[in-house]
Amino acid sequence: MQLPTFSDILAAHELIKPYIHRTPVLTSKSINALMGCELFFKCENFQKVGAFKFRGASNAVFSLNEEEAASGVGTHSSGNHAAALALAAKIRGIKANIVMPSNAPEIKKIAVAGYGGIITYCEPTLQAREETLKRLANEIGLTIVHPYNNLKVICGQGTAALELLEEVKLLEIVMCPVGGGGLLSGTAVSTKSTLPSCKVMAAEPRNADDAFRSFRDGFIHPSINPKTIADGLLTSLGELNFAVIRQHVDEILTASEASIVAAMRLIWERMKIIIEPSSAVPLAVIMENRDKFAGLKIGIILSGGNVDLTKLPF
Amino acid sequence: MQLPTFSDILAAHELIKPYIHRTPVLTSKSINALMGCELFFKCENFQKVGAFKFRGASNAVFSLNEEEAASGVGTHSSGNHAAALALAAKIRGIKANIVMPSNAPEIKKIAVAGYGGIITYCEPTLQAREETLKRLANEIGLTIVHPYNNLKVICGQGTAALELLEEVKLLEIVMCPVGGGGLLSGTAVSTKSTLPSCKVMAAEPRNADDAFRSFRDGFIHPSINPKTIADGLLTSLGELNFAVIRQHVDEILTASEASIVAAMRLIWERMKIIIEPSSAVPLAVIMENRDKFAGLKIGIILSGGNVDLTKLPF
Repeated sequence: MQLPTFSDILAAHELIKPYIHRTPVLTSKSINALMGCELFFKCENFQKVGAFKFRGASNAVFSLNEEEAASGVGTHSSGNHAAALALAAKIRGIKANIVMPSNAPEIKKIAVAGYGGIITYCEPTLQAREETLKRLANEIGLTIVHPYNNLKVICGQGTAALELLEEVKLLEIVMCPVGGGGLLSGTAVSTKSTLPSCKVMAAEPRNADDAFRSFRDGFIHPSINPKTIADGLLTSLGELNFAVIRQHVDEILTASEASIVAAMRLIWERMKIIIEPSSAVPLAVIMENRDKFAGLKIGIILSGGNVDLTKLPF
Repeated sequence: MQLPTFSDILAAHELIKPYIHRTPVLTSKSINALMGCELFFKCENFQKVGAFKFRGASNAVFSLNEEEAASGVGTHSSGNHAAALALAAKIRGIKANIVMPSNAPEIKKIAVAGYGGIITYCEPTLQAREETLKRLANEIGLTIVHPYNNLKVICGQGTAALELLEEVKLLEIVMCPVGGGGLLSGTAVSTKSTLPSCKVMAAEPRNADDAFRSFRDGFIHPSINPKTIADGLLTSLGELNFAVIRQHVDEILTASEASIVAAMRLIWERMKIIIEPSSAVPLAVIMENRDKFAGLKIGIILSGGNVDLTKLPF
């Protein structure tokens, strides 16, 4: 198993720089005062397609050689990764085949189609999705880009922390949410290579704590039907991601649903920016562990800002 | 009647620079594509207290001489201006007396008190508010700072357009919402002095079109019980503001409630930033008049971001 290196991430950054937004790092005096620590928010909610996923998808797409590119890319994710892959492929001028369950929310179909993705519908089971995608891969030779268990994707996601550490010096902790582990594994390599003294922490909903348990027990616990508002963090860890996480991550902490909603609302109200629930989990963890984080200088990656405004938890 | 000059605004900017945020100017490719013009959003929703009002209040507070300052400031506004005045006074270390009706929303009382304002409650009529404030002014000698019909306030508000025009060259139109006219009159002086070829336009809810009618008819129509979601734009024009508006504003346009909500939602969804309904009125006007604005380079002042998240129109 080939693990991502820091030079892979530096190379990814050079490759995708012309296509991604260099997102701002924002601070809030009032949130700092409330939390008793110094927070720096890397705003991937302002990234293209509204999520960090565009970094990894771009790296995967622009790393293809001409021959591979000619056959296009594909995935069976239906969320931010699908939109990101579709847009990256569109920018390169190649095809992106997105396998989606027939019952996928209309809003996701529109987003993917809007970015030029070619949608293939299938039965709403994981098995049907995987088989449909494999069939397409065999038929048209497309390159499957897994949403997180993929070297190029991990390296792309790691560029967010790279920019954060370049902009804010001497952070004591970098924290991001963990779902499949794409963002976390990339962040961990970037952080430990740039600033070895900096701790890497992950934040996970307590109702979907498979990464927390996997990290504790040393093997991957599958995520089974978790119920959390943080809908970007439902998946199980990938093997590549887990290998990196075991090596480089210092701690995984969990937060309650109530804390996640409170943290999300605090960021909306005080910072006037829109983040999705998954993005609020690191701040929720800090709210639940004030003593642990008191006085520290902490970088947080706000992973995305795609929310259905008609279904807010406030 | 002494009208604000461009040098007054430049002086205001020097005076308040250490206290205000220099807010960013954001753009959105997807909104530009949808609207068919090039938009530059000056984000006063990221200003202190979440609205441009902090600029004017700061200029009023920091313009006081020592003797005046010792007696403090006061207002009977209960919205963003009250919070802004309280914070500016707190920063200078002087008192801010805020007269509020006894039935003011709890959220506004908390905001003003949170910024250190001293609240005096009165009966919920405009007359009671004005009399209570005058009584306080006589008793303790405080300086009344009107939310918009005030030279210092107008000059402070004009600094937002000043920064916008400094950052984005050769705008063809600058547009902002109009309520009492504080922001519009300051914006008009800044814009016409910096770039005489640039048009100054104002956007108003069609359901509260007193400024539109006043501008057309040449005298101030009072705003009588308007019903609009843009709750920052309910007041009548001030005399000072109207004098400036007649002189420097090119056009006032109105938008429907449905367009205001649609424009607000578009900015939330595409830009991932939180703006209040009043801020959405200029984009709503553009949505209703695409041909008129086609291909133009337009600066829009997003006036604020204070919304009650439990009462959204989506």
